[in-house]
Amino acid sequence: MTAAAPAIVLVRPQLGENIGKAARAMLNFGLTDLRLVSPRDGWPNPSAGPAASGADLVLERAQVFDTVAEAVHDIPHVYATTVRKRGLVMPVVTPEEAAREIRTWPERSAFLFGAERSGLETDEVAIAGKILTVPINPEFRSLNLAQAVILVAYEWSKHEALMVPTEGDEREPRATQAQLEGLIGQLDGALEAAGYYHPPDRIPATKNTMRTILTKAGWSNREVQALRGMIRALVNPRPR
Amino acid sequence: MTAAAPAIVLVRPQLGENIGKAARAMLNFGLTDLRLVSPRDGWPNPSAGPAASGADLVLERAQVFDTVAEAVHDIPHVYATTVRKRGLVMPVVTPEEAAREIRTWPERSAFLFGAERSGLETDEVAIAGKILTVPINPEFRSLNLAQAVILVAYEWSKHEALMVPTEGDEREPRATQAQLEGLIGQLDGALEAAGYYHPPDRIPATKNTMRTILTKAGWSNREVQALRGMIRALVNPRPR
Repeated sequence: MTAAAPAIVLVRPQLGENIGKAARAMLNFGLTDLRLVSPRDGWPNPSAGPAASGADLVLERAQVFDTVAEAVHDIPHVYATTVRKRGLVMPVVTPEEAAREIRTWPERSAFLFGAERSGLETDEVAIAGKILTVPINPEFRSLNLAQAVILVAYEWSKHEALMVPTEGDEREPRATQAQLEGLIGQLDGALEAAGYYHPPDRIPATKNTMRTILTKAGWSNREVQALRGMIRALVNPRPR
Repeated sequence: MTAAAPAIVLVRPQLGENIGKAARAMLNFGLTDLRLVSPRDGWPNPSAGPAASGADLVLERAQVFDTVAEAVHDIPHVYATTVRKRGLVMPVVTPEEAAREIRTWPERSAFLFGAERSGLETDEVAIAGKILTVPINPEFRSLNLAQAVILVAYEWSKHEALMVPTEGDEREPRATQAQLEGLIGQLDGALEAAGYYHPPDRIPATKNTMRTILTKAGWSNREVQALRGMIRALVNPRPR
């Protein structure tokens, strides 16, 4: 059983475009509950759709509220996203820590994001139980709204089983030692025939180097066989 | 001492605005090495600056290259960011896994990001040692360029404070991309001359396989040079 997906609450967002971008960021990582508190230009906003790049269902389901308190009325765990100190004594967590906590709770969570320039007001932050801060370059703090949303959504999605992992990791099993020995023996014989091993006193060290090089590569048997074909070709060129 | 910060390589980016947004995303998390491969509209691009929102130093230092291979010539660990299957058998990692790996290496790393719509070409992916895929909602895959960059930069930055040097790590540094390209080019030429590449319709796949095999091995330059000596010997046997 997985925890319910968190809600994303945009507080007094200014540009419809940014609401659309936030919706797109959300859906990329499986979030669909978007809540808007007093969007400056009303709702719906014609600029949101194009910026959502297909995340229309998030926009269609978006709910609008007058205050932060109303927006999170049904949600017990609320995080206020802010980089600034507020004179509020509250726990501060990273997106990673928040995602880990959320997973342990059966109840829902919400993340508050402030207006594009002004951020959250102190009394809005106070509604939350915790502050969420993205650790960022202290000399260049310039996360925009959709970027902050995507980092939170991304961290949350890591814990979701429904997310398809990396699309088919096709890592092949390593070749067996016997398969690898076949390659080493073949190359050794070919080098021997080509007069590669000299002077005599260096032969053991040179053979060890060759063996180490081929062993450390971690090839699959398919790759070992491809290399054997290449060696065969070099030793017996095809008549042209 | 911390591991060197990775380079971000944008391959054939189309819009200057997106280059600017990527620069902004990078600097938020402390990355400054931006490399551009054949930007569609040339460089510098007047649209980049405004979108960078102050991340001008990243744009000013950006380097431009003609090919992916040239862009990563000095970087041994290369990740290709792609969500698509390519018929290439390569390890696939998440941004989190990549960030963890990078921390263990003394050498630099680079992340390749493809053009806005078309992504990376197969032969560009093949230059990398690994594929990086962001686990994403399978029903809505719509990460834009700057968003993909910010997730990689964000994951990398998480480990920055924790960096501890591994004392007395006696591993040799990996060969640079240029050194590896020397080996690949030599073997490719030798195989060509030996008539290895046939039938014609399989040539691109065969060359990619060869490249992947040599790239994944993680050899040092000493090992690369030893292999080059072996290939020379096979192609020109010493008279006995």
